[in-house]
Amino acid sequence: MRISEIGEFGLIERLVRPPKRESLIVGIGDDAAVMGMTGNAVLTTDMLVEGDHFRTEWSTPRQIGRKAMASNVSDIAAMGGTPEFAFISIALREGIEVEFMDDLYAGMHDVADEYGIDIAGGDTTHGSVMVINIVIVGSIETPVLRSGASPGELICVTGPLGGSKAGLELLLAGKDGPTGAVAKHLDPGCRMDISSDIAAVANSMIDVSDGLASEVNHICDMSSVGAEVIAEWIPLSASTREAGEVLDQDPVGWALNGGEDFELVFTIHPDRLKEVEDRCTVVGRTLPSDEGRTLVVDGNRLPLTGGYDHFNE
Amino acid sequence: MRISEIGEFGLIERLVRPPKRESLIVGIGDDAAVMGMTGNAVLTTDMLVEGDHFRTEWSTPRQIGRKAMASNVSDIAAMGGTPEFAFISIALREGIEVEFMDDLYAGMHDVADEYGIDIAGGDTTHGSVMVINIVIVGSIETPVLRSGASPGELICVTGPLGGSKAGLELLLAGKDGPTGAVAKHLDPGCRMDISSDIAAVANSMIDVSDGLASEVNHICDMSSVGAEVIAEWIPLSASTREAGEVLDQDPVGWALNGGEDFELVFTIHPDRLKEVEDRCTVVGRTLPSDEGRTLVVDGNRLPLTGGYDHFNE
Repeated sequence: MRISEIGEFGLIERLVRPPKRESLIVGIGDDAAVMGMTGNAVLTTDMLVEGDHFRTEWSTPRQIGRKAMASNVSDIAAMGGTPEFAFISIALREGIEVEFMDDLYAGMHDVADEYGIDIAGGDTTHGSVMVINIVIVGSIETPVLRSGASPGELICVTGPLGGSKAGLELLLAGKDGPTGAVAKHLDPGCRMDISSDIAAVANSMIDVSDGLASEVNHICDMSSVGAEVIAEWIPLSASTREAGEVLDQDPVGWALNGGEDFELVFTIHPDRLKEVEDRCTVVGRTLPSDEGRTLVVDGNRLPLTGGYDHFNE
Repeated sequence: MRISEIGEFGLIERLVRPPKRESLIVGIGDDAAVMGMTGNAVLTTDMLVEGDHFRTEWSTPRQIGRKAMASNVSDIAAMGGTPEFAFISIALREGIEVEFMDDLYAGMHDVADEYGIDIAGGDTTHGSVMVINIVIVGSIETPVLRSGASPGELICVTGPLGGSKAGLELLLAGKDGPTGAVAKHLDPGCRMDISSDIAAVANSMIDVSDGLASEVNHICDMSSVGAEVIAEWIPLSASTREAGEVLDQDPVGWALNGGEDFELVFTIHPDRLKEVEDRCTVVGRTLPSDEGRTLVVDGNRLPLTGGYDHFNE
């Protein structure tokens, strides 16, 4: 069905569901939302542009919705916060039909429901390309910052890396490969499930949106520490290794520079590792700032560079 | 200068200014922002797409920035809230240079500074078209809702209407006309300056983003009231009237169906009008729901229809 058949307000009415949180004082339908907040609020916002961040020929609308919501929840997880409200702005282009929007919202609701998030507002408009901007607001007690690391901590990750980039490379090459890798790109999820446990013991934290090398460098920049990452210690899934063989590429490179895995990277005092060691893998350690940032590969010491820059050419 | 010369992080560093509000606990530079909030938070989000919502051949970057920020502040004003923090997500296309971004942000800072708003975060990415999404978060005590009207109240507006549409029509026609009308389209401002005074006495309120007819209908829908608007009472500026003559169009139609004037429409008990009568014009009154919604033109009673629908064909 064409969206013009039901109109902007008909579409919003169709997609909106009644909120569950009593703290949502004013939801969809007024000039702005009003939320009862006690204490500190945490807020993240991410913009996804068709062609750059998702492709309707690769992803189902439901996958697009799930990934869009999960990538934002991941930012809240990376601070140690609890997501409560989401605001969805969408620019629709010609050819997007009502059923596409139903499925897109079903995907966003999948993730919202999993973490108790109410969709509390947003903006629906028109554009020459489809754009999705999601804002998530939540509560937070003590944020875990990128700036909290000191020398002598362990650098840990909450799961295998490089899988999203492996899936992207398979899709770009039009090659058959392990379906797990493609699934990890199209529907990466996030680690809200364990983030509060990690936040309770971590000194610094960030999520993997641009690749491990970039995220460790952010922690180093903000915490004024050095770091040593051991390439052999970086966890890779079987499907990521297999994709590396299919494409004759190094999956460790994907882990370091791929991004969109949405696992958490954190630093922790060695004495506290035992509290979360069943939920993470140690990949290195922090050092004094003047010792720099190093990637150790087969005993060779290389500079820890990389990370995706949206404007790099 | 090309953005690739300084990179994504260089660009962000160049555009960011130090925050002024102590309640901003974590600002730009981490996975999410953290704000100290006491009581209720008000939040609005708006997406602007190049071509649909602004054109770089008509507007300077600074005008685009001013209008984008003002249209969001207007939503906070329409609730009776106080804006505190803004979050700016931008998708940049090829050809946007660093100087464009400097001026765009200068425009957003113009309006942010006027109302004491800190730019506290956002997202910078790439797209095939330029998109700006602004989120504003603020504080609010008692929100003034669209649903608060009762029959027997006066319907008021805070200033002349139709000016933005007059300017748009002049631009579309490529005709010379009064510069005031074009300026009103490119740099409409908002009524944050008087919104708290109005909020103290209004029973319902909304800002004019889609035209007076649409906004009064929203109040009627949400408040379950009828309404009578007197066309002759709608305030029009001299430049809007003059644009009507240049284009041989009815400026009252622009006021009713034009939009983007960002004045406030509110309803008020007649006894309280004297408290704000120097800052508004009465354009009609609310009625019992079963009396419907009427536009009175030269003594003729017409249905009060209209309003811009982004998906109407």
